[in-house]
Amino acid sequence: MAANKPFRIALIGAGRIGKVHGMNIHQHPDTVVHYVVDPHAPSAAALAETLGATVVDPDVVFADDDVDAVVICSATPTHSDLIEKGLLSGKAVFCEKPIDLSIERVNAVLEKTRDCTAPFLLGFNRRFDPAAAAMQERVRAGDIGDVELVTVISKDPEPPPAEYVRVSGGLFRDMTIHDIDMARFMLGEEPISVVATASALVSQEIADENDVDTACLTLLCESGKMAVITNSRRASFGYDQRIEVHGSLGSLRTDNVPSTTLVLERAEGVRRETPMHFFIERYEQAYKYEWQHFVDVLKGDCPASPTGVDGQKALLIADAAYESLKTGGHVSLR
Amino acid sequence: MAANKPFRIALIGAGRIGKVHGMNIHQHPDTVVHYVVDPHAPSAAALAETLGATVVDPDVVFADDDVDAVVICSATPTHSDLIEKGLLSGKAVFCEKPIDLSIERVNAVLEKTRDCTAPFLLGFNRRFDPAAAAMQERVRAGDIGDVELVTVISKDPEPPPAEYVRVSGGLFRDMTIHDIDMARFMLGEEPISVVATASALVSQEIADENDVDTACLTLLCESGKMAVITNSRRASFGYDQRIEVHGSLGSLRTDNVPSTTLVLERAEGVRRETPMHFFIERYEQAYKYEWQHFVDVLKGDCPASPTGVDGQKALLIADAAYESLKTGGHVSLR
Amino acid sequence: MAANKPFRIALIGAGRIGKVHGMNIHQHPDTVVHYVVDPHAPSAAALAETLGATVVDPDVVFADDDVDAVVICSATPTHSDLIEKGLLSGKAVFCEKPIDLSIERVNAVLEKTRDCTAPFLLGFNRRFDPAAAAMQERVRAGDIGDVELVTVISKDPEPPPAEYVRVSGGLFRDMTIHDIDMARFMLGEEPISVVATASALVSQEIADENDVDTACLTLLCESGKMAVITNSRRASFGYDQRIEVHGSLGSLRTDNVPSTTLVLERAEGVRRETPMHFFIERYEQAYKYEWQHFVDVLKGDCPASPTGVDGQKALLIADAAYESLKTGGHVSLR
Amino acid sequence: MAANKPFRIALIGAGRIGKVHGMNIHQHPDTVVHYVVDPHAPSAAALAETLGATVVDPDVVFADDDVDAVVICSATPTHSDLIEKGLLSGKAVFCEKPIDLSIERVNAVLEKTRDCTAPFLLGFNRRFDPAAAAMQERVRAGDIGDVELVTVISKDPEPPPAEYVRVSGGLFRDMTIHDIDMARFMLGEEPISVVATASALVSQEIADENDVDTACLTLLCESGKMAVITNSRRASFGYDQRIEVHGSLGSLRTDNVPSTTLVLERAEGVRRETPMHFFIERYEQAYKYEWQHFVDVLKGDCPASPTGVDGQKALLIADAAYESLKTGGHVSLR
Repeated sequence: MAANKPFRIALIGAGRIGKVHGMNIHQHPDTVVHYVVDPHAPSAAALAETLGATVVDPDVVFADDDVDAVVICSATPTHSDLIEKGLLSGKAVFCEKPIDLSIERVNAVLEKTRDCTAPFLLGFNRRFDPAAAAMQERVRAGDIGDVELVTVISKDPEPPPAEYVRVSGGLFRDMTIHDIDMARFMLGEEPISVVATASALVSQEIADENDVDTACLTLLCESGKMAVITNSRRASFGYDQRIEVHGSLGSLRTDNVPSTTLVLERAEGVRRETPMHFFIERYEQAYKYEWQHFVDVLKGDCPASPTGVDGQKALLIADAAYESLKTGGHVSLR
Repeated sequence: MAANKPFRIALIGAGRIGKVHGMNIHQHPDTVVHYVVDPHAPSAAALAETLGATVVDPDVVFADDDVDAVVICSATPTHSDLIEKGLLSGKAVFCEKPIDLSIERVNAVLEKTRDCTAPFLLGFNRRFDPAAAAMQERVRAGDIGDVELVTVISKDPEPPPAEYVRVSGGLFRDMTIHDIDMARFMLGEEPISVVATASALVSQEIADENDVDTACLTLLCESGKMAVITNSRRASFGYDQRIEVHGSLGSLRTDNVPSTTLVLERAEGVRRETPMHFFIERYEQAYKYEWQHFVDVLKGDCPASPTGVDGQKALLIADAAYESLKTGGHVSLR
Repeated sequence: MAANKPFRIALIGAGRIGKVHGMNIHQHPDTVVHYVVDPHAPSAAALAETLGATVVDPDVVFADDDVDAVVICSATPTHSDLIEKGLLSGKAVFCEKPIDLSIERVNAVLEKTRDCTAPFLLGFNRRFDPAAAAMQERVRAGDIGDVELVTVISKDPEPPPAEYVRVSGGLFRDMTIHDIDMARFMLGEEPISVVATASALVSQEIADENDVDTACLTLLCESGKMAVITNSRRASFGYDQRIEVHGSLGSLRTDNVPSTTLVLERAEGVRRETPMHFFIERYEQAYKYEWQHFVDVLKGDCPASPTGVDGQKALLIADAAYESLKTGGHVSLR
Repeated sequence: MAANKPFRIALIGAGRIGKVHGMNIHQHPDTVVHYVVDPHAPSAAALAETLGATVVDPDVVFADDDVDAVVICSATPTHSDLIEKGLLSGKAVFCEKPIDLSIERVNAVLEKTRDCTAPFLLGFNRRFDPAAAAMQERVRAGDIGDVELVTVISKDPEPPPAEYVRVSGGLFRDMTIHDIDMARFMLGEEPISVVATASALVSQEIADENDVDTACLTLLCESGKMAVITNSRRASFGYDQRIEVHGSLGSLRTDNVPSTTLVLERAEGVRRETPMHFFIERYEQAYKYEWQHFVDVLKGDCPASPTGVDGQKALLIADAAYESLKTGGHVSLR
């Protein structure tokens, strides 16, 4: 397996997604979790023990020349500073989306780190889902001819708690942004305008925050290609994650993934299992492949993708979608 | 079977869809095709022979008190006059969509026949597809709670010939109108605005006619419910006809129907059959159920549905969708 | 449509399956039901009225030179005599399976009609199911290489009434015989032995008749190819009719057919519709294609298939399967 | 995570399946691989390094009181001795199937270790597949009423090399034994007889070894319940692993699992991905759940299952199936 010394990783954030990445880093033959950082001391200690790592303050991470890469899984408002410190200290950075909820702050990060040569990978995890990745490969290989219409269906199993909604940046910046990235990934051409239609049908708390929970976005490219995203904060049957790409020679589709293929046939109907409940289970493999990609990047085998620019472009579209809710029409992205 | 004398039907139009209705009328125990009308004499004669009917001029139809109902399958520009003559002569009328491509003419027909007591059924055939009908029943029965988001995916196998495009009224009035009706059928609430995004990606001929062939429409209701329609004039794999209704307690979906369930598993993949090629095969059952509904109407067992008002409302939305292409935004339907 | 005079058909038997064939004959442009025969006068009269036919005694049928073909849908014990009379009077014969429950009587019919030139089609309807027919075509075309293992899964929705069981000839001669024919159709080689394992698990009435209701048969060919048939008289979820053919290059499978593709997704599971309830619905298309084949035979376009020999061979295997239940081992078919 | 010291595991065998178990042991928070044993020194060294374990001779394992359990993944002829040594030295034992290819040797192992209190888990991995486990739970919960007919379809993607065939014990003892165990798992009642039909259709090498590669087994229980197993050594499309249990109230089925849900629709057909290629991928999760079960056993939370007796009973049936090939009939298992 690993012929050389494994890459030393500093993991910042020991919450739910931090644990997922921590275990993947730990289990990968080419990487070890060297440091764990989290302001919540018991979480940091517990995860560090499991991973055989040391708990440190963030400053230790950026000062240690033996740290090869920083993985940022902390709260959103901390992302931009940590990305800057990591890249400016010459370390590779893998950061969970988003860079920041403010496009100005995102622009500033990209500006400030423009000359950094260390790679930066932004965690749009779904690009690494085996089905989505295979789909995009086939699209690029021309299996369906020219892309004409991309459809992304994305529904969460249940709305987030009110306190999360308050700091989430809203449906488009928090949830739809993944679907916007997926649409860009499949379109292969930048959208030039977006129109959004949305309502608060699911949750009074979301309505009280002046946010929406049910939405449709249409993205239009200069060539006439388009993408349609439909969202809901609640699918009672589980995490609804489907993609379709329609082209001149055919279509590609991905379906939801049930936990098993078990089928029960009785007089009242034929019953299959519901889709996996949420992203931790549904994208378990995607997180592993995402880590493998980052290892390949660390080895110099390929450039990081998606990057900060992908985060920036998706956020611009999300912002424009909110603008569209006010104007009632297409908002230009140029 | 039929205890009484079967209803006498005059069939106007002996083309492709006229033959479908003609055979269904002929095979139904409670109805007979009495007259066939078509300006193309050989077509009229051939169909009349098959059905054991008599070829006549249209005036004979409206003057004959023994004709119970008129079925209109002729060219679109003839529909509105024939509907008026039929209803004003006291006959039940079943007319293929549309009433007319002009909303003014449609309004005039509805105005002129307002006091007619004879029933009028407009041929939005898809409402009678067993899957769509069962879906709508379950929606109304509350199986998925409150409707939040309706999705209608509708793609033709190939673009129509240029000469058809020219007289079709355009994508929205010709093809999308079926999907608009389906969205209204499932929403259970009138849309208050529509926004459309569209391109001509499939056919240069369609572009040359200043029409579009690839489109997305979003319909919004006052309650915040919405419907999304995606269209293409070309799906290389066959007629793509799917509906989803997402509600507070779950979702209902219908899939495409392959001609058989045969599966071929080989090293290079698992291959199933493509969806049925086009509407004549796909909606064969729907046309039979549609005719059964009209027979039920003739017997007085239930009111006709959909009616001229449904045609009127769908056309208003299609017109507004074209307006939206110009304005780039939501167009009010009120 | 029909350029010439349609073929005149005498329909013997006005029960459930007689009505199915009667309607198909009536609706086919090249055939008309001329006579209806049934000892139960009201059934004969009702069906004859629907079909525009005349009720007669059987002797009239065989004496009328204008009758082109006889369709036998009467009770099983009458089949063999009627087949003989029909073929010996020079008429084409289409008879519902079986020829007879006694192999001696079947042999006698084949012997007696050996020199008849009129065609004889035996109603193994499933061969005409579009999925089964397409499967067999692909098997013969070599899509899966050499056939190695055929699997026929066949379960009725519920056990027949005791009075039917008593005269049915038993599970193997009544129900399994269809699956035996299907196995022969797919194998493309005659089995040389059969072993059966069976129980009465479903119905005490069946046990009381010393019959079985749950069974597995294995048929072995000289080349080593084999076929496996599993049966039950009760599938609570509907008629379970599936076929698989496994070959050196892949497999072909057919699935059950639900009445619609409607899917309901809720927290408790993803529910599809059950398979069509029983053979009248499930094989509606097969009966139409079967009739089309018989019309092609009447026109001289192809030989009838399956024939009396197919019925004879299937019955020999069913008889051997009963023998196997006694011996506990493979019974030779040579 | 692990509150106490993790269990120390000695892993015997560093081949393909040894690596699978080694990684699962390593990644489980409650277990560590302490020793690795393999006569092939480079394999032992490489795996030990990955797992942070020490390479030792087998005698060290059994003499070390700090070893909690032995996991046996070595060549089949070594299993029985190692099981005896492990259990007699008081260690828990998890052994890949089979205990031995000779029923006499298996009987001797069970006899000799009868009084051992340390648990013994036999590696019938498929019982731990999430779909199979859920199926068996539902069967036991009565969701389909009384079990009537179990069907196990099991085909390998390709035949093993001749040298493996030679020492495998033959199709029934090597491959079918998994399906026999699955049938017993689902039946919930011991079979009293078995009949087998088999051929060598796939591989001349297998024929040359006087073995078979295509087979059907029928198992019969005293109550009349039965199970049918169909096998092939070659499914060109991948590992074909399906189970059905038919009962008085319905059926349960499991399907094959494709690597992703991607669907490609083009004019020539609708293509899905093939099933996962072979057992390492297909049962990846099963191996993890199997290990979790063994950890639960080590903790004293539940008894080990399946055990040596399950191995013994499955081998008795496999032996009887070979006897049936000679006699051509059902062979009693009592």
